[in-house]
Amino acid sequence: MARPARSPTSRRFAPVKAIEWRGGVDGECLLLDQTLLPARRRVLRVVDLETMGLAIRRLAVRGAPAIGIAAAYGVVLGVRTDANRSSERFESALRRSVAFLERSRPTAVNLFWALRRMNDCARTHLDAGRNPARVLEILLKEAKAIHREDEAQCEAIGRYGKRLLGDGAAVLTHCNAGALATGGIGTALAPIYAAARAGRSVRVFADETRPLLQGARLTAWELAQAGIEVTLICDGAAARVIGEGKVHCAIVGADRIAANGDTANKIGTYGVALAARSHGVPFYVAAPSNTFDLSIKGGGGIPIEERDPSELLAGSRAPALSRSLDAYNPAFDVTPARLVSGFITERGIIRPPFAKNIPRVLGKKR
Amino acid sequence: MARPARSPTSRRFAPVKAIEWRGGVDGECLLLDQTLLPARRRVLRVVDLETMGLAIRRLAVRGAPAIGIAAAYGVVLGVRTDANRSSERFESALRRSVAFLERSRPTAVNLFWALRRMNDCARTHLDAGRNPARVLEILLKEAKAIHREDEAQCEAIGRYGKRLLGDGAAVLTHCNAGALATGGIGTALAPIYAAARAGRSVRVFADETRPLLQGARLTAWELAQAGIEVTLICDGAAARVIGEGKVHCAIVGADRIAANGDTANKIGTYGVALAARSHGVPFYVAAPSNTFDLSIKGGGGIPIEERDPSELLAGSRAPALSRSLDAYNPAFDVTPARLVSGFITERGIIRPPFAKNIPRVLGKKR
Repeated sequence: MARPARSPTSRRFAPVKAIEWRGGVDGECLLLDQTLLPARRRVLRVVDLETMGLAIRRLAVRGAPAIGIAAAYGVVLGVRTDANRSSERFESALRRSVAFLERSRPTAVNLFWALRRMNDCARTHLDAGRNPARVLEILLKEAKAIHREDEAQCEAIGRYGKRLLGDGAAVLTHCNAGALATGGIGTALAPIYAAARAGRSVRVFADETRPLLQGARLTAWELAQAGIEVTLICDGAAARVIGEGKVHCAIVGADRIAANGDTANKIGTYGVALAARSHGVPFYVAAPSNTFDLSIKGGGGIPIEERDPSELLAGSRAPALSRSLDAYNPAFDVTPARLVSGFITERGIIRPPFAKNIPRVLGKKR
Repeated sequence: MARPARSPTSRRFAPVKAIEWRGGVDGECLLLDQTLLPARRRVLRVVDLETMGLAIRRLAVRGAPAIGIAAAYGVVLGVRTDANRSSERFESALRRSVAFLERSRPTAVNLFWALRRMNDCARTHLDAGRNPARVLEILLKEAKAIHREDEAQCEAIGRYGKRLLGDGAAVLTHCNAGALATGGIGTALAPIYAAARAGRSVRVFADETRPLLQGARLTAWELAQAGIEVTLICDGAAARVIGEGKVHCAIVGADRIAANGDTANKIGTYGVALAARSHGVPFYVAAPSNTFDLSIKGGGGIPIEERDPSELLAGSRAPALSRSLDAYNPAFDVTPARLVSGFITERGIIRPPFAKNIPRVLGKKR
């Protein structure tokens, strides 16, 4: 019963799990509390709708794909208390759950996409005359399917994206679009994990990503856990690092992509894209196809979440000042499509012209 | 003996003092310890060379012009112990002091400029046969002259720069190039103070400026002290704020400007310049003429200080991670001259073409 021998030089390429469902319809959703990482590794056991909404809002679970998965499980948690009641009662719980979860974060489209899918699934089966208890089982299956599909999409993004990364490649990334942000190996980090698995040496420059330091706390941590070389820089250093020729490309995730390719992602992404363009360094956006919102023509139509100034003021180490100081804290910015070299999706890499190629690729049957 | 009445609506436009000399040659240099601001307002009484060197190195006094002044006073502190010894002994103390202070910070040219001026002054008077005690007095006078000239230069920068700021103007700035960085009302902030004094309503968006948060801790604090409206943003938000049309121009300071106009300033400045150019927003560099280093042709020749990664890792709130994580912490970047709309100096605003206009304006007799 000896444990399998492990070479001391073997790398741990198995990324962490951000979200898991344990058990059946009366089970629980396990979330790695990302607000405590990397200092503490605490797993939240979420058993009700309200706790899930709060977990999303306070960023215990974050990252567009992971938010979608969490919201899907959130619907299960929200309706299961009414699974033994009438269909009307169940439908009312469904409406309430979806509306509640919709209000948790405004920018990431995956949230709305997952909620619509859960809602459509429930209504289809209720309309077909299935009883609430049965529909609840179907909804859990649907949420797990969303989760598994995301995992598969991450793998596919990794497969396509690793073609961009030769041996010795250095990549700049912003925020965290890794395993912690998804149900799998990440979006922006998927090509890096995939290249590392393929035996290539890759290294990452991670923007620390103020105000919440997702880069310093999450990206640096999960890459280090996986044995991938990572160098932390402050956000202001990205333009210089790119200018110094230290990276071969930049890869970021996305929270919502308009039909023309304009991309909403963590505040600071736009500046990285400008610097990359200025130095002829490719700038890629890695995202599953459900991050594209074809109902929105351009970036101007994407709602941008403005978060509490206290997130920013906390960093000033100045409690006295913080009370009186004004701060502006948009959580995202929009990078215009003209700065994007390509979208790395689970269906392949979409290259310009995006207005033509995005609908063409996304319209394909899988 | 009643204190003069003060209107409750009068604004406090008298900026704080970063550095002062108190007393004669046996006096002391008072430094507002900027590492503690804004939480604590502690004044350091510096009476010896070593303490002054450390104060510069650990950023208790910072900002290119203020460093120059501090270095000048530092020379006085360094040689005064040998003022009653032989000329040879005095000269040796001078050499030692200058060499010691030169090693404190590598990027800001004002440091080297001030040290050269103090050194030249001492040698001229020693060569003329003056005794060390007399030369010490002359050196203190020279240091005070450097200080007073800087104060006057700040005023002149304010006078020229305020022409760029109409009523209601909004300015984005990075790091701190204010009163705290100079012997007067600042460089980048001088036009803002001058416009406010002239009765114009001006507001400032201040980049927090990671890793050391000079924007959040110092710029926001000194502007608020002076009653000027200031909004704090994270560095990553600058590109979006500029893109949203929230500011009319960006004004930053400089640590060293090459002959062609390439400008070394706090890390993050280059990204601001790229975003400003991309949106047609003017990007100005405000600096006294001694910040120009005509001996350096272009930005590639400017030495860039790389500071301890711990400055960056401290922000990750992850002591366990910090020990193992790699970080890259350049303190400055270089903004190419093509992105600069103009240099606001005490001799006027220098416009492109810089290769022609910088030598022309700086060659002028004052």
